[in-house]
Amino acid sequence: MDKLYVIKIGGNIVDDDAKLTSFLVSFATIKEHKILVHGGGKVATKIGDLLGIESKYVDGRRITDAATIDLVTMVYAGLINKKIVAQLQQHSCNALGVTGADGNLIPAVKRPVKDIDYGLVGDVKSEMVNPGSWSSLINSGFTPVAAPITHDENGQLLNTNADTIAQEVAKALSKTFEVSLIFSFEKSGVLLDVNDESSLIKVMSQEYYSEIREKGSIFAGMIPKLDNAFSALKSGVKNVIIGKAENLPSLIQGTDGTSIIHE
Amino acid sequence: MDKLYVIKIGGNIVDDDAKLTSFLVSFATIKEHKILVHGGGKVATKIGDLLGIESKYVDGRRITDAATIDLVTMVYAGLINKKIVAQLQQHSCNALGVTGADGNLIPAVKRPVKDIDYGLVGDVKSEMVNPGSWSSLINSGFTPVAAPITHDENGQLLNTNADTIAQEVAKALSKTFEVSLIFSFEKSGVLLDVNDESSLIKVMSQEYYSEIREKGSIFAGMIPKLDNAFSALKSGVKNVIIGKAENLPSLIQGTDGTSIIHE
Repeated sequence: MDKLYVIKIGGNIVDDDAKLTSFLVSFATIKEHKILVHGGGKVATKIGDLLGIESKYVDGRRITDAATIDLVTMVYAGLINKKIVAQLQQHSCNALGVTGADGNLIPAVKRPVKDIDYGLVGDVKSEMVNPGSWSSLINSGFTPVAAPITHDENGQLLNTNADTIAQEVAKALSKTFEVSLIFSFEKSGVLLDVNDESSLIKVMSQEYYSEIREKGSIFAGMIPKLDNAFSALKSGVKNVIIGKAENLPSLIQGTDGTSIIHE
Repeated sequence: MDKLYVIKIGGNIVDDDAKLTSFLVSFATIKEHKILVHGGGKVATKIGDLLGIESKYVDGRRITDAATIDLVTMVYAGLINKKIVAQLQQHSCNALGVTGADGNLIPAVKRPVKDIDYGLVGDVKSEMVNPGSWSSLINSGFTPVAAPITHDENGQLLNTNADTIAQEVAKALSKTFEVSLIFSFEKSGVLLDVNDESSLIKVMSQEYYSEIREKGSIFAGMIPKLDNAFSALKSGVKNVIIGKAENLPSLIQGTDGTSIIHE
């Protein structure tokens, strides 16, 4: 099986032009098949403020009304996605920007309303993510660059967390490729103390995760990322690594960041 | 050779939700290979006003400064492109939205400054439009939906007229497919009197065009469209038709609109 890297880059890096460029230069040099999934960054909030669209969050997730889905579609799938694509093309990486609506690459369903109505937020229909469509792009020599937008197959665009997209795509392609899933962001990896970069956990097993999670030693924002990581491993993804975007080459070599392992 | 329709839809249709939906439903039923190229519409100007980005035009062409290229990238490649893609997907057309930066599908060069500095406007490098990349998308079963944005291969996105994009793509693919190029908009076709829909010119030859153009009987806005049309025919495009978006099925059958012919 061919190797495939599914690499997610966090919003904080997307917001920082210099860091983003340096990351993209590094990403472009990866010889193997690769997919980039990017987060949103704060620019959507900034543009939303100018347009009079209020940003509402519950538990770190944006509440997406009709105006907000237009806003994030513009900013994530338009502005950010195409800037990344143009920069990757400059560095001889044949990037092709997509959302989950394009080629029906990521079908989703509007999240059912329970305690909170998240609005136009999409939960990925895992079993419907079509590895054939992704593979045909990859085998045609394109490097897909995915914005965190999905659709419901009934004409409605939906807002979906970028970590989730990276994980779902990695899972769907794990039968076709030997997939490494890399979550890159502004921290060195999973930290025991979120304010101390030297407290990096180099290897994280399910058992150790359960243990420190129970103790409350895991930063709340890290929990969905780690849940995603373990879920990906269980579904056939070969490696999951969490680490600093600036260290991409060593994350790929497995010499930096936190390696998530089965046991 | 397989048939391919390259269909351009004008900004006025894009601005009108009901007309756009009806057009897309009709477009989705086309059995042959197809590419949709969409214009920008007035929504970019409206959003630009809210963001404090002034819209400047010379001879009907937008002057594109740095803020404006961000604006049109958001609106054309984000908002409009993805809404169209999601709607086509709803109607079982496997649409995939692109700009000229994606897959390096339309390399361009920043228009040289002569009398007017158009800013970040891209002139398509015709010989560099790669039919292989377009074909690989089409042969993978995708229907490309192109927003009127290109790039300079050095990381800069550029604003490019949608008619020009349609024509250049049609030309580039005319060696691989039997291409029909359709410019669809709010009028019935090329009119002798722009205010009289019954003055439709059914067949327009180069000779007749030169004649009525000299007399000043051609609406100024139609001239670049017709120049594009004749240029496409000269480069191997099989048919060019200009007509009303609402009449798409009869435009395809050649029973409506203006047919542009060699002589």
